[in-house]
Amino acid sequence: MKTQTAYGFQLGSHQLQKFTNHPIPTPKSNEILLKIEAAGLCLSDPHLLIAGKPMESNQPVADKFVMGHEIAGSIAEVGAGLVDHPVYKRGGRFAMQIGIACGACHACREGHDASCEESSQAYGLNEDGGFQQYLLVRNLRTLLPIPDNVSYEVAAVTTDSVLTPYHAIQKVKHLLQPTTKILVQGCGGLGLNGIQILKNYPGYIVATDTKPATEKIAREFGAHEFHLDISKSHHDPYSFDIVFDFVGAQVTFNNSDKYIKRRGKIVMVGLGQSKLFIPNYLLARREIEIIFNFGGTSAEQLECMEWVSRGLIKPKVTVVDFETLPQAILDLEHGKLTGRVAFKPNASGNKF
Amino acid sequence: MKTQTAYGFQLGSHQLQKFTNHPIPTPKSNEILLKIEAAGLCLSDPHLLIAGKPMESNQPVADKFVMGHEIAGSIAEVGAGLVDHPVYKRGGRFAMQIGIACGACHACREGHDASCEESSQAYGLNEDGGFQQYLLVRNLRTLLPIPDNVSYEVAAVTTDSVLTPYHAIQKVKHLLQPTTKILVQGCGGLGLNGIQILKNYPGYIVATDTKPATEKIAREFGAHEFHLDISKSHHDPYSFDIVFDFVGAQVTFNNSDKYIKRRGKIVMVGLGQSKLFIPNYLLARREIEIIFNFGGTSAEQLECMEWVSRGLIKPKVTVVDFETLPQAILDLEHGKLTGRVAFKPNASGNKF
Amino acid sequence: MKTQTAYGFQLGSHQLQKFTNHPIPTPKSNEILLKIEAAGLCLSDPHLLIAGKPMESNQPVADKFVMGHEIAGSIAEVGAGLVDHPVYKRGGRFAMQIGIACGACHACREGHDASCEESSQAYGLNEDGGFQQYLLVRNLRTLLPIPDNVSYEVAAVTTDSVLTPYHAIQKVKHLLQPTTKILVQGCGGLGLNGIQILKNYPGYIVATDTKPATEKIAREFGAHEFHLDISKSHHDPYSFDIVFDFVGAQVTFNNSDKYIKRRGKIVMVGLGQSKLFIPNYLLARREIEIIFNFGGTSAEQLECMEWVSRGLIKPKVTVVDFETLPQAILDLEHGKLTGRVAFKPNASGNKF
Amino acid sequence: MKTQTAYGFQLGSHQLQKFTNHPIPTPKSNEILLKIEAAGLCLSDPHLLIAGKPMESNQPVADKFVMGHEIAGSIAEVGAGLVDHPVYKRGGRFAMQIGIACGACHACREGHDASCEESSQAYGLNEDGGFQQYLLVRNLRTLLPIPDNVSYEVAAVTTDSVLTPYHAIQKVKHLLQPTTKILVQGCGGLGLNGIQILKNYPGYIVATDTKPATEKIAREFGAHEFHLDISKSHHDPYSFDIVFDFVGAQVTFNNSDKYIKRRGKIVMVGLGQSKLFIPNYLLARREIEIIFNFGGTSAEQLECMEWVSRGLIKPKVTVVDFETLPQAILDLEHGKLTGRVAFKPNASGNKF
Repeated sequence: MKTQTAYGFQLGSHQLQKFTNHPIPTPKSNEILLKIEAAGLCLSDPHLLIAGKPMESNQPVADKFVMGHEIAGSIAEVGAGLVDHPVYKRGGRFAMQIGIACGACHACREGHDASCEESSQAYGLNEDGGFQQYLLVRNLRTLLPIPDNVSYEVAAVTTDSVLTPYHAIQKVKHLLQPTTKILVQGCGGLGLNGIQILKNYPGYIVATDTKPATEKIAREFGAHEFHLDISKSHHDPYSFDIVFDFVGAQVTFNNSDKYIKRRGKIVMVGLGQSKLFIPNYLLARREIEIIFNFGGTSAEQLECMEWVSRGLIKPKVTVVDFETLPQAILDLEHGKLTGRVAFKPNASGNKF
Repeated sequence: MKTQTAYGFQLGSHQLQKFTNHPIPTPKSNEILLKIEAAGLCLSDPHLLIAGKPMESNQPVADKFVMGHEIAGSIAEVGAGLVDHPVYKRGGRFAMQIGIACGACHACREGHDASCEESSQAYGLNEDGGFQQYLLVRNLRTLLPIPDNVSYEVAAVTTDSVLTPYHAIQKVKHLLQPTTKILVQGCGGLGLNGIQILKNYPGYIVATDTKPATEKIAREFGAHEFHLDISKSHHDPYSFDIVFDFVGAQVTFNNSDKYIKRRGKIVMVGLGQSKLFIPNYLLARREIEIIFNFGGTSAEQLECMEWVSRGLIKPKVTVVDFETLPQAILDLEHGKLTGRVAFKPNASGNKF
Repeated sequence: MKTQTAYGFQLGSHQLQKFTNHPIPTPKSNEILLKIEAAGLCLSDPHLLIAGKPMESNQPVADKFVMGHEIAGSIAEVGAGLVDHPVYKRGGRFAMQIGIACGACHACREGHDASCEESSQAYGLNEDGGFQQYLLVRNLRTLLPIPDNVSYEVAAVTTDSVLTPYHAIQKVKHLLQPTTKILVQGCGGLGLNGIQILKNYPGYIVATDTKPATEKIAREFGAHEFHLDISKSHHDPYSFDIVFDFVGAQVTFNNSDKYIKRRGKIVMVGLGQSKLFIPNYLLARREIEIIFNFGGTSAEQLECMEWVSRGLIKPKVTVVDFETLPQAILDLEHGKLTGRVAFKPNASGNKF
Repeated sequence: MKTQTAYGFQLGSHQLQKFTNHPIPTPKSNEILLKIEAAGLCLSDPHLLIAGKPMESNQPVADKFVMGHEIAGSIAEVGAGLVDHPVYKRGGRFAMQIGIACGACHACREGHDASCEESSQAYGLNEDGGFQQYLLVRNLRTLLPIPDNVSYEVAAVTTDSVLTPYHAIQKVKHLLQPTTKILVQGCGGLGLNGIQILKNYPGYIVATDTKPATEKIAREFGAHEFHLDISKSHHDPYSFDIVFDFVGAQVTFNNSDKYIKRRGKIVMVGLGQSKLFIPNYLLARREIEIIFNFGGTSAEQLECMEWVSRGLIKPKVTVVDFETLPQAILDLEHGKLTGRVAFKPNASGNKF
């Protein structure tokens, strides 16, 4: 049996585990073996380790699994039943839908496959993911084609750090007019991609972040204004039509509440704090809606890839050595990592 | 100068004031004097006294004003400029839109006159209202006709206790299917009218209230089930498509969170507590939306009157003596009043 | 090789063909052999023969194929790769989605699998369908489970004669209020099911049909009024909020135009005439929308089955002998058949 | 009594009438006398003369009235009841909402004041309009403020030639993505403004017109492509998501049908032919929607003025001498006029 090196989760430990001699599976009749060409690192990775438990699922979850949920690869091997398949050919380039949606339940058939009723399994979050050389793909529906002009590392981070803000923005895009005032709180990976996406729609984008260094890129990506502290800006309270909160902390929620207009929408994306205090009466008085978000659908992922392919959004990603993963995850946890990084587990330089 | 008896608010006091010898104004050219035929009592009345301050406004608010915001009356006198007006004739029956919307700003012209950009004045909440015999109406647009077969007292309570749940329900009615599971928390005045309104749409209505006595009427009005405590019912967590919270307390919010399905809507109407704790991560994971509400539009008020006129909703209201108002407001505050009450300030039996 | 009897289309002929000794295929690894338990007859069947050509497709279409597109059956045999499949077991009861949607294109992933971008193949309309004993199913996604309490013949007709009006109604259901006036033109199979579906939503239903005999069932199914000729009724022109045209002829379109209100919707379902004359200026002046329909999605088909299972709609269907199919198709063409009929190709009485 | 010169309609004649010594009315208590600063000429003007009848109304229409429905002016005089009015002051700059909506019916209160249920009167189309020096305004709600940096002539044409395409575009703007393909047929006044408006939203704009001269301005205004004949272009049939028809003739409708994608929208604005032939079956098969349009709402007119004020749209208009109006209307009818023209009835050079 062939083996590979992988990094992952082990129940009982809060640290990333290195799995050496991890088996490379052989695909059965309708399965595919994907060679991981790039896997992105996400803030959810250290969070999962800190929590010390896999993402909740309605199915039994292994105590140990390979992490990495932003995955792009090429088909290394197809099962016997797929030998003549017109789509899944050896060498074919695909990015994975993170959530392993069944495709047949009512929610999936309706287009809401981010809320699959049958499966809450997710690559790298509660079953084997991308921090390894080869991934066995049992659900072919999770393989989404990568356009020719999109690199593997960009495709990998598109599955999450582009898809998540894209999905949130789709819920309010019908409200966007050139006269719409939009507040974007948080210019990290998701927030910056959010700005890039918003830039394709009408609206005036005011971005905020506590890190001065993010101003340059926020403006470059399309923010019309940038403030370290919105409450020190010239903007009036109750003057924004839509607020995106890519931080999700009490302090950003308080700003959302303070700056949102009557009948405005507060779009929550960030998960900075798991509990928030909200002013029921004041939100009622203005008829606010709070819209919570998590991931996106596979149809939206196809759209994101198309946008990236057309150059409408340009996700930033730096490729770093696979063996630096354990350090990178710590750096990310401690805010020392700027920008999105991805690994190439099969790059020739990897020393295993 | 003619005078009348009125009850109202006085800055510095937390008790209802009786204004004897309160002047009856004379309408100017384009104004109307409305004879109050019925005025409803609402939980917002004691709340306003407890708070000791008028509803916030973008305009200067008097220290003293007549309360009562659920108002129906007949035209007693029209200004000189309206003598031949085809609509506003002496004796004409009208219920007041509570919010004194300008009718000309962008929000009003768009149909969102509950969010008028120019005026946040409201009859009985920050300027003279219905707890008196005669009300001067300067903004004729706030006069909404009462259908012939609707009594004044029913019309009065329709302006608020029907309109408010109606408005909230309109925001989610497009989601209602016969297979939709709806949780209605709180069977007070608003909740019961909410159930009556919902009954006109498809959906399975599960009502809850801590008062056993409300079960009978909740079922009569259309609830398919009633529970004193939903967590002791057979319903599974995460199984309701829509939750209406007519209470607005932490305990009801916790139930909303516990029982709402993926991609469900939590519709907030009650203002029981002004601050609430919410679980950011868990709401995000399921992509919940929280929709806050306050009052309704004048177009919706016309619709409510039409529904009442057709017998689709039958608001319950008891007429009590006008001079019992000070006691009634205390009873309501202390939960001793069941059902909606209204006063007839011009009834012959009133002893002034 | 086992054979069976089948009825179908042959290029060059305008008459139904009987295929004796038609082969019963053997399912490959991921295929399923479905035993046809019931197949419904639809007006599209004689239409296809009259036209003398299969439904257009983006794929090559055989000159000869088994007709019958309303299909319900039980699994007779599964391919080798599906032996342990948790869903597709021998004896499992399924109704077919008529359109053989790929499930992986953008439209399918969005929930619009009635507009699949990859395939416009459809069982019985341009490839083998249900007028035979056994159907080979290559695309497992087209197998939709039948609830236990729904018979095969009801399930079969639900796939089309319930789904089609259901799909059309879903596009306007957000507009339905108790005060909405709805005109339903045509009380044939689709129109009557349309009335049954509409009955689950608020609204006042006025039905019309030129056949007096349909009045009784139209009223039974939920029509509040019935007229042989709407222009001889008490209804005013420009007074209906929504018109459903289940006929699709010039005469019914003229009524739609005459009776639709400002900002109303004309929902086209019937295909009685392939070309229609419309008054551009008059439709513009009132800002009408004309909404065209064809079939429905697989998510909607699941919903229809759920509704049928709950007794919310009760499709009428009569089972007749399979060998009477050639006569039945002629009777349907000539308007001699009332109500929906279905065949049971595997019923013991069939004489082959 | 003061008099003025006016141009208008006279029943029985198909030619523009000159009314000399037309009285200048005196405003009553709540009325306003507007000095016409600019009035635009529109294709509806010759159409009205050709038809020989005023726009239909639910109210009695005079046999003779002043034409001109694109109106901007300054307040010359206010009625006694408005002397201290904070908004309507002498010299105030306003453009008229063409349709004289009541503001109090259900449709108006809902925001649909282009479909007022009480009044279908319209300035210059069935009662006195802008082709005169002074207009009496009885319904103050039809006065919409002009931003300071917008000229009277631009404001005048904004009320119609900007508002009409804006209104149509609002109905589909929620569908616009950067990947959306939009076909705009007809680059006359409305079509060109339509392109300018669309340019503020995402989408790829392909414009067509039979006049080669329009290509330059169509591209300047935002069209990505221009074709004299779309069927000679590289575009595939069934490849556009949305088609705007600013012509409204059979030939353009045929193109709409030919090029619209599955589930696409055909947006009708032009009124070139009053009757059109449409292919029922082919539109059904693709589930097309045809959306008809006429004018716009007053809320939208406020938005258009805001867009113009911000430079987001730049309506082209040429001011010509008032006394050339009779010739201009003939030139427009015979296609000799390029671009929008406006008159200044009070300009010093007018020779009356």
